[in-house]
Amino acid sequence: MSQTLQNDRFLRALRRQPVDRTPVWLMRQAGRYLPEYRASRAEAGSFLNLAKNPDMACEVTLQPLRRFPLDAAILFSDILTIPDAMGLGLYFADGEGPKFERPLRDGAAIAKLGVPDMETELRYVMDAVRVIRRELDGKVPLIGFSGSPWTLACYMVEGGGSRNFSIIKAMAHNDPEALHRLLEVNTNAVIAYLAAQRAAGAQALQVFDTWGGVLSPAMYREFSLPYLARIARELERGEGDDRTPLILFGRGNGNYLGELAGTGAESLGVDWLMDLADAARATGGRVALQGNLDPTVLYGSPEAIRREVRTVLDSYRDGNGGSREGHVFNLGHGMSPDMDPDHVAVLVEEVHAYSAR
Amino acid sequence: MSQTLQNDRFLRALRRQPVDRTPVWLMRQAGRYLPEYRASRAEAGSFLNLAKNPDMACEVTLQPLRRFPLDAAILFSDILTIPDAMGLGLYFADGEGPKFERPLRDGAAIAKLGVPDMETELRYVMDAVRVIRRELDGKVPLIGFSGSPWTLACYMVEGGGSRNFSIIKAMAHNDPEALHRLLEVNTNAVIAYLAAQRAAGAQALQVFDTWGGVLSPAMYREFSLPYLARIARELERGEGDDRTPLILFGRGNGNYLGELAGTGAESLGVDWLMDLADAARATGGRVALQGNLDPTVLYGSPEAIRREVRTVLDSYRDGNGGSREGHVFNLGHGMSPDMDPDHVAVLVEEVHAYSAR
Repeated sequence: MSQTLQNDRFLRALRRQPVDRTPVWLMRQAGRYLPEYRASRAEAGSFLNLAKNPDMACEVTLQPLRRFPLDAAILFSDILTIPDAMGLGLYFADGEGPKFERPLRDGAAIAKLGVPDMETELRYVMDAVRVIRRELDGKVPLIGFSGSPWTLACYMVEGGGSRNFSIIKAMAHNDPEALHRLLEVNTNAVIAYLAAQRAAGAQALQVFDTWGGVLSPAMYREFSLPYLARIARELERGEGDDRTPLILFGRGNGNYLGELAGTGAESLGVDWLMDLADAARATGGRVALQGNLDPTVLYGSPEAIRREVRTVLDSYRDGNGGSREGHVFNLGHGMSPDMDPDHVAVLVEEVHAYSAR
Repeated sequence: MSQTLQNDRFLRALRRQPVDRTPVWLMRQAGRYLPEYRASRAEAGSFLNLAKNPDMACEVTLQPLRRFPLDAAILFSDILTIPDAMGLGLYFADGEGPKFERPLRDGAAIAKLGVPDMETELRYVMDAVRVIRRELDGKVPLIGFSGSPWTLACYMVEGGGSRNFSIIKAMAHNDPEALHRLLEVNTNAVIAYLAAQRAAGAQALQVFDTWGGVLSPAMYREFSLPYLARIARELERGEGDDRTPLILFGRGNGNYLGELAGTGAESLGVDWLMDLADAARATGGRVALQGNLDPTVLYGSPEAIRREVRTVLDSYRDGNGGSREGHVFNLGHGMSPDMDPDHVAVLVEEVHAYSAR
């Protein structure tokens, strides 16, 4: 499908091919910092109504692309659609993060879980992918995504966000077999989910391991990394230039980039706690890298934003043998609602202008 | 003063001298997980009343030592006493973290700050140190402490805890000179504060850089590390076996341990996001290391606690050329109110029993 793209910079960078300038998109680029998003959200009545209506999900997916010359669109959805489809009852309390009505607290609850049917129980997601692809009309590629098995498990066991992840870590220590069963089911579901998004038209796929970084190294290597590796290995995604690139993003994954590069994923997303030069050296050209501007730079002045954008671009180049190939510019984490759209315009313009020199 | 100690395991480990077993204390060992603490807290009426009354601060400092054979006591106080004494108005809203009535938002407010007088404005801290030393009567050493210049600045500028530290990071980008002035004043105050605690009787000193780990490497090296280094360099603390050891603890400091070991601090505190073997290799015997059990292991079963304690002890030994010398056992972060005192007993017992083999 990439032949028909008017802008394939993003996919070329993920394949580590030459590009005329570094492609850029921003995690949570469709969101509350945009007034037009807030209007759509008000019209829908709730975040979940917005995400579950393919036409409205398409509308908010496209909103940032109308403002900024971004090089990729990302499906508007939530990382917790899978456990919701498994029957845990996803909801959003006012002013709080996501929660589940029926969290999993023991092996018996975990044993009852099954992989949802993608074209019925998660049909709204696949329909959204199809509508967005049609409306994008080849302008830029569309990214599909999922939460990682470990990150899904965090929400499923804790029942929502957590300060110290005490419930799931207690399970990891006291009943590791039950937790591994949960991670197995989640992994099977993530693979099926990403495959279905690809079949529906997603041209790149990202896994968000938001909470891998709360684990000790031994626990990360037991409860998160092997399941990411299984996704990278088992997810069928084509060959050569038709291969759909897989991006593994993880907060706090800096110490594991070498191991993650060995999973077979095409790209790694890096947070802002590591110099991209070090990340490039640690992965040695085996993968493309996506990142890694500290999102709070967007609270700085336009001058500060331009300076920090250049620093990230140069850091990647310095660690990548003097070449900008294989870099997708992004933030190290998602945008926040109180950020200024004008500052996003400065960021995107500077990425393109500086990297084209 | 160390000659008169009945148990000097902790100070010997900080000097990398041989010990009969690995010493152990726990960050936030005096706290809400103990029913006797909750009783003292209720009697005092508020956390700050407790911290500001030397006799009551002494009582809660000693409470965990009556239950567990810990190898050190730590002054019961708050990391934010310095900015409170500077006039920012520390308070604790119900169920929330610390807040300041008058946060610093610009260079003009920062220019007015001065180093508080230790024996008047912070006399309650020094009195608490003196009372605790008297009551400890040489049983174990007493640790004094302070927040780091950067961590104090975070609370002083944000006005409390923060999700993404947007206000202070905006200041770092838009007015770095003002932030550096603040960090200078804080550093002068921290040095004077730790010197005064030492003069009052503290036998070891710890700096808590709780929020250094939210910074990108470039920002950490500009806004946190140089000020920690200045404390390590300029804090007068004696020589040889009479030298009062300085411990630099930092969440997320794993990538900087080599640099931190070069500051002249006697010891580094390490969180649980790094194998202690790697930390020992990165610092190559230049400092003692303190840590680094994931605190949530205390939610596990006694069997899980014993296993994870042994893993931390062995990890240190493996990275330290087969020797346990130079290790102080601790958690990688503070204890939580919902932890079980019986589990703490298991932890302390296992550290001593296993390391004595």
